[in-house]
Amino acid sequence: MEIRYPNGQVYTPDSETEKKKNRKKPVALDRFAKRGMGLEDDINRSNEYYNSAGRCLVYKRPTPIRVVRMQKEKIVEAYFSEKSTTDYNGIYRGKYVDFEAKETVSRTSFAFKNIRPQQITHLKRVIELGGIAFFIIRFKSLNETYLLDCRDFLPYLESAERKSMPYEECRKKGVLIEEGLSPRLRYLDAVDRKYFGK
Amino acid sequence: MEIRYPNGQVYTPDSETEKKKNRKKPVALDRFAKRGMGLEDDINRSNEYYNSAGRCLVYKRPTPIRVVRMQKEKIVEAYFSEKSTTDYNGIYRGKYVDFEAKETVSRTSFAFKNIRPQQITHLKRVIELGGIAFFIIRFKSLNETYLLDCRDFLPYLESAERKSMPYEECRKKGVLIEEGLSPRLRYLDAVDRKYFGK
Repeated sequence: MEIRYPNGQVYTPDSETEKKKNRKKPVALDRFAKRGMGLEDDINRSNEYYNSAGRCLVYKRPTPIRVVRMQKEKIVEAYFSEKSTTDYNGIYRGKYVDFEAKETVSRTSFAFKNIRPQQITHLKRVIELGGIAFFIIRFKSLNETYLLDCRDFLPYLESAERKSMPYEECRKKGVLIEEGLSPRLRYLDAVDRKYFGK
Repeated sequence: MEIRYPNGQVYTPDSETEKKKNRKKPVALDRFAKRGMGLEDDINRSNEYYNSAGRCLVYKRPTPIRVVRMQKEKIVEAYFSEKSTTDYNGIYRGKYVDFEAKETVSRTSFAFKNIRPQQITHLKRVIELGGIAFFIIRFKSLNETYLLDCRDFLPYLESAERKSMPYEECRKKGVLIEEGLSPRLRYLDAVDRKYFGK
């Protein structure tokens, strides 16, 4: 079966997606979530690793689905809807953590257009309540992923003239996240460095 | 506080809510979730109240949906699946909180049969990581709702002979949650009493 993106482009599954298909898995969901697939997939696998090692407990919030019609136990009409919160939340070292993951192909800046106002409101409230709030931003073309604390990020986001945060600022303010096999993305090490002085 | 979109446009939350109201409602989901509706609905409304007052940030994890088939943007075959985590999580007074809500018609005991082993594993990990983990248990016929800390609950759950926790023990070990109009369920007051000595 040929799968297409909403824009009509043909989707070529990698071997991982292939495996999932064979399990009769929710292929369509993967297709929908494709936008941020590379990074999201890395984070999800890292969380599986971290969670099962007992180091943290962080889960992805499922994309909300608006159910319109059912036939007995079967949903026959439903639509994906937008999250008013962020992608991930959980607990690490006794603290509440909450973050959003985004990737960009740009080499020079991270554009804000994909961040929704409700997400910003949400992250601000996390900070007010004493939680840890950050973004994980991947510059795909540079093969670099940064943890960026919300407090470092917000001044750029809220400056009326700006529509993006320059790469150089992300590099300076953020913590580079090391990549490996298990976990793929050692983002908790970056959290340690940024928030726990380790 | 004025919130702005990245493009500088002012964000008006009212019109946002208005839009949501006018959207076709997910009736079917409510119907499905009906099992625990009374209590769940009370908690959801209390969270709306508490969240918007900035007192905490607690959300219900959506029931996961396994998407099998799509027609363009429309989901045409999907099924509800079971959560491996709990119903609610979030942040309160800087602490990570995680809980499960259950109601029973029994007047004498709370049966464990509706609690899944993965949920117990999950709650134990929350405790290990320094979070607050509890159950909210409603005895419908008695019109009483209790907050029960996981550590008080687990010995009963893990005793091989027991299949339930007697009402009397819930009453002794738990904190009675007061009910009102806004919020319907003053469960944060019970959290204060149990965990913050207030």
